Amino acid sequence: MTKVGIVGYGNIGRAVERAIANEQELKLVAVFSNIPAHYESGDKKFVKTDDIEKYKDKIDLLFLCVGSATDAPKIAPKLLASFDTIDCYDYHTDMKRYVNELDSVGKKNKHLAISATGWDPGLFSMMRVLFKSLLPNNQVHTFWGRGVSQGHTNAIKSIAGVKQAVQYTVPKQEVVEAAKKGECNCKSEEKHTRECYVVCNKKDEKRIEKTIRQMPNYFVGYEVAVNFISEEAFEKYHAGKMNHGGLVVGNGTHDNGEKSGMSFSLDLASNPAFTSNVMVAVSRASIKLKKQGVCGALTMLDIPIIMLAKEDRDTLLDSLV
Amino acid sequence: MTKVGIVGYGNIGRAVERAIANEQELKLVAVFSNIPAHYESGDKKFVKTDDIEKYKDKIDLLFLCVGSATDAPKIAPKLLASFDTIDCYDYHTDMKRYVNELDSVGKKNKHLAISATGWDPGLFSMMRVLFKSLLPNNQVHTFWGRGVSQGHTNAIKSIAGVKQAVQYTVPKQEVVEAAKKGECNCKSEEKHTRECYVVCNKKDEKRIEKTIRQMPNYFVGYEVAVNFISEEAFEKYHAGKMNHGGLVVGNGTHDNGEKSGMSFSLDLASNPAFTSNVMVAVSRASIKLKKQGVCGALTMLDIPIIMLAKEDRDTLLDSLV
Repeated sequence: MTKVGIVGYGNIGRAVERAIANEQELKLVAVFSNIPAHYESGDKKFVKTDDIEKYKDKIDLLFLCVGSATDAPKIAPKLLASFDTIDCYDYHTDMKRYVNELDSVGKKNKHLAISATGWDPGLFSMMRVLFKSLLPNNQVHTFWGRGVSQGHTNAIKSIAGVKQAVQYTVPKQEVVEAAKKGECNCKSEEKHTRECYVVCNKKDEKRIEKTIRQMPNYFVGYEVAVNFISEEAFEKYHAGKMNHGGLVVGNGTHDNGEKSGMSFSLDLASNPAFTSNVMVAVSRASIKLKKQGVCGALTMLDIPIIMLAKEDRDTLLDSLV
Repeated sequence: MTKVGIVGYGNIGRAVERAIANEQELKLVAVFSNIPAHYESGDKKFVKTDDIEKYKDKIDLLFLCVGSATDAPKIAPKLLASFDTIDCYDYHTDMKRYVNELDSVGKKNKHLAISATGWDPGLFSMMRVLFKSLLPNNQVHTFWGRGVSQGHTNAIKSIAGVKQAVQYTVPKQEVVEAAKKGECNCKSEEKHTRECYVVCNKKDEKRIEKTIRQMPNYFVGYEVAVNFISEEAFEKYHAGKMNHGGLVVGNGTHDNGEKSGMSFSLDLASNPAFTSNVMVAVSRASIKLKKQGVCGALTMLDIPIIMLAKEDRDTLLDSLV
């Protein structure tokens, strides 16, 4: 069995803990958190993240379930010097730098990072590259939602004065239809609207709305609706919502004018539950790759699908190929 | 550039030839066929397949575009002793034996076969294993059509007395809907109907219909409609039709009862055009893997998606992950 730890105990960390419980090859040794309510709770599974180096010989693989905005870029390279890691880093615009930094650290320290796992980046990245590689003269488009973007929700929550918030990403249906026909020339910003529901004091509304609309990478360039609602309405309609989903659509035109279309869609009642399941499936590949001596940093693009499977090769050839 | 050959010059072989023309890294050296109309045509690209060993040092990689029923199992191991190969073998029930035989031959002769490429087996195999690996407590179903199955069409054409034939595979829509909800408990045979259109002499109809219905692997167990039509009707409504497509649907239930659904769909105006494009994309992986010293037999399950791409790693990390 592979001894594993979880770093960070938010929605993803808790969901990874549940997914590990169903994975026979994994044994959870500790959950690392720097939140006092966790490590002072008396629950022995919690260890202060500052003490993680003491677990260098007790844990093989860490699931990094920390935020991408500030935590992951800081903590991931340090941890990779002592452990194998699987993360769900989702900051697309920093991906190349992040993965290449981890690749250097991993190769130097003989550890393996599998980065940007989950569904986007992750599964959707696989589909985008697959569609682009298989379709000639192609158009490939990604749509997200309708669903809660945890990243965007957290971005809003980080604004001073915000008491509660949720952000739904909503694909524009007419653009989805155009993409299926290979007739979409929109940028990502033009393909979705971003619906925000925020609870705050009346006096803060103007400042908060302005701050949201000006957040680079998250909201700038999008059609954004900011709705201020009461705490009661938030509890009733939005509290605890974690559904999400999306669609990757590809269209290609062969030399003779014939068209090939492909699409991949996800419909998730719980974004963290599914993301954590992907991370745990990726650990099967991590363990196999490590045995082959692979070090550095990979993404889901680098993993043969067979390595995600529980079944052995002959069983798959017999039943699923 | 990699020097390649095509073995077999039916629908797939001809489509591979067109796809190679658009692939900068490939140079087509010869098309091998044992059909006199080809190698006696005066077109210098054709070489008699019996003479293929003379090309051992002139060609690196062969695209095997021969039938799966009898040709591929006979010819593929022989050719792999002298060349790297990519095939579109689609005989699911023989897959394990076939791939394992090629694996032995390839390892012994330091050659690499990538087998069962195309969309099913191939892309759909990847999706089935991916869905099963990522979804807990899952149901995964495959649907084909509505579209022309070349394999089933050829099977009918092989019956004595058949002048023309086409077979459309049609998913039962109510079963597709049940599968999306995770409520489908059907076997493959119960999920589709098989529509056959056959041109023959009146006196042969009974025998031909009986022969079709009794073909194991192809028709036994399915709801089959055999329609005898005139040559005129065939020309008007069915000649040259090569559209196909299908759907892989997966549903999982997490421990807390929350559901995750995923689906992958294909809509192809030309089955051979798309299949050939997949085979050529797979050649990118074959070339990279061979440089790494990989020998034996792989399927698309064993290929990291990044190896199918034309773009380099940093470009993909920057734009598609």
